[in-house]
Amino acid sequence: MKRTPSVQTQFLSAQDVAAIVTQMGPAAALSRMADYIAQDFLRWQDFDKCARVASHSVGGVIELMPIADAKTYAFKYVNGHPKNTHVGLPTVMAFGVLADVDTGVPQLLSELTLTTALRTAAMSVVAARALSRPNSKRMALIGNGAQSEFQALAFHHLRGIEEIRLFDTDRAATAKLVRNLRHTAIRLITCDSVAQAVRGVDIVTTVTADKTNATILTPAMIEPGMHINGVGGDCPGKTELHPDVLRGASVFVEYEPQTRIEGDLQHLPADFAVTELWQVLSKKAPGRTHASQVTVFDSVGFALEDYSALRFMRDAACELGVGQLVSLIPELANPKDLFSLIRPVFKELALAA
Amino acid sequence: MKRTPSVQTQFLSAQDVAAIVTQMGPAAALSRMADYIAQDFLRWQDFDKCARVASHSVGGVIELMPIADAKTYAFKYVNGHPKNTHVGLPTVMAFGVLADVDTGVPQLLSELTLTTALRTAAMSVVAARALSRPNSKRMALIGNGAQSEFQALAFHHLRGIEEIRLFDTDRAATAKLVRNLRHTAIRLITCDSVAQAVRGVDIVTTVTADKTNATILTPAMIEPGMHINGVGGDCPGKTELHPDVLRGASVFVEYEPQTRIEGDLQHLPADFAVTELWQVLSKKAPGRTHASQVTVFDSVGFALEDYSALRFMRDAACELGVGQLVSLIPELANPKDLFSLIRPVFKELALAA
Repeated sequence: MKRTPSVQTQFLSAQDVAAIVTQMGPAAALSRMADYIAQDFLRWQDFDKCARVASHSVGGVIELMPIADAKTYAFKYVNGHPKNTHVGLPTVMAFGVLADVDTGVPQLLSELTLTTALRTAAMSVVAARALSRPNSKRMALIGNGAQSEFQALAFHHLRGIEEIRLFDTDRAATAKLVRNLRHTAIRLITCDSVAQAVRGVDIVTTVTADKTNATILTPAMIEPGMHINGVGGDCPGKTELHPDVLRGASVFVEYEPQTRIEGDLQHLPADFAVTELWQVLSKKAPGRTHASQVTVFDSVGFALEDYSALRFMRDAACELGVGQLVSLIPELANPKDLFSLIRPVFKELALAA
Repeated sequence: MKRTPSVQTQFLSAQDVAAIVTQMGPAAALSRMADYIAQDFLRWQDFDKCARVASHSVGGVIELMPIADAKTYAFKYVNGHPKNTHVGLPTVMAFGVLADVDTGVPQLLSELTLTTALRTAAMSVVAARALSRPNSKRMALIGNGAQSEFQALAFHHLRGIEEIRLFDTDRAATAKLVRNLRHTAIRLITCDSVAQAVRGVDIVTTVTADKTNATILTPAMIEPGMHINGVGGDCPGKTELHPDVLRGASVFVEYEPQTRIEGDLQHLPADFAVTELWQVLSKKAPGRTHASQVTVFDSVGFALEDYSALRFMRDAACELGVGQLVSLIPELANPKDLFSLIRPVFKELALAA
């Protein structure tokens, strides 16, 4: 007997994903997430890619980020509203879907707010493995908001960072980070300025939230050999690096057409040379070539990372038995008989007549 | 005391929407849906519009359809896989979201498979009210699949159609339609060919599913005064009308840039004149000007209709107390403290140490 494929969708709530990360442990979750991302970046050519579709408003942006290979389609919904924290809401909120390319059935619907923080940190480490000096021990972390602890943990557990120097214009944010990570082995040092935080570090991670053309890093702060992991500059009008920082460095990006519009790169001419990270991971292009080279990963967040993150969460939920099924799509005995869903009305009318 | 806005999302499953339509009755649901669509089309200039983002594969397409005004953002996920019925799955499956533009919070997540059938039929009637002859009584319905009953009911209840002449290459589909609507007052006539079905009718509705450049209606079948409601030709390579049918008619579209790519219009030169329907509804352009004029509504389905449909379902669910809240977005006491979701791990580690 032919069995109809299920149209039930696996649903992972915010609590479900928190349970997965808690049960697995954040270090293991970040490590596996990084593996999924690295695997998918090696299959770069398999994906049908496009820049995300953004809807800008006065206070922020709402974006859709679709991507697909021959088997699986993924998209993420994500907002960016820097002033949200003033009303008690997160700056960035997200959810996403994995669907079957052959039939269009949405197979997984998952929260992606917590997941995005994990995947962004994992992506940063995947890039830093190829771009930062191998013996990197000290990192500056500029911006101590919602994503900062994940960056700290990822660089500590997956890249050997022992000391993290912290700065945020909101001192309460830094205090929160220190409280959250006080039980880890990371040496946390609170600094009074960006300049103080970045002095002598191997890696600078910027993960600030303001939707402005900020200049958080200036050329005077850059030391030979530094790797800059620029995470916060990720949409038109939202940048973190002085253009001369990019001019003095080798710049690496996720997906060039998107980063030209959204990254710190938006301030440089269209012919400014950059390298897509997948080329470095695939050994088609060099990453860091010498110890005194300054490298920049101008990260904006690309749909492929969410594809990887959703894939990881689906597997992890299956292993740990987390989540539930929801009826996003109706179950039909005859697929041409959508009307059967509301037919009872007419039966009743007929009986009443 | 400041109250944090809720980040809970209202969820309407396929069963929930079926319950709404069943409780309200399909005629009332279609009528209210048509009102919501007509209202929003009168506010056409308020919307930030774009053509949908399509991901094509061998067997079908998956699309995202975003739209926003200053207050509300909406998007729909929808697939089109004509061969799905062979494996027991619907050709078209959909779900969508309404979100708050000011904060990015997703407020409603709803099934849109059943809803799309209702909104497409309601949209067809909104167009036909402006374009078909006022005294129209007879309609041909070519394609008797999942959407056909909704078209039949909408034209019967909202446009006064008394007789519907049916044709489908799959006779079982026609038989299903007749069974489903046998308790209504509609006079249903099963025909052996498209030509037989369309002879003498006021309105021809085509709602076929094949992803081919089909020619379901040819110029020889067209009679003076007919209104053609072309619903099934809705993506590149998927058309229903012979180009000369369009050449001999006044053609109306939802959103011109999208219809040029996706509609039956794709076979005509870029300068072939069409009128956007909102202009007719706003009295900025004429609709039907005389009784013998042939009119075509080259409908492809536009994001604004889903915006209206989601808005209607949200209101209807509220009135009828249907649906549940889900945690798509995490609830955070401090919005900068996303890490609090997984903090328990570290507490335990500290206690164990």
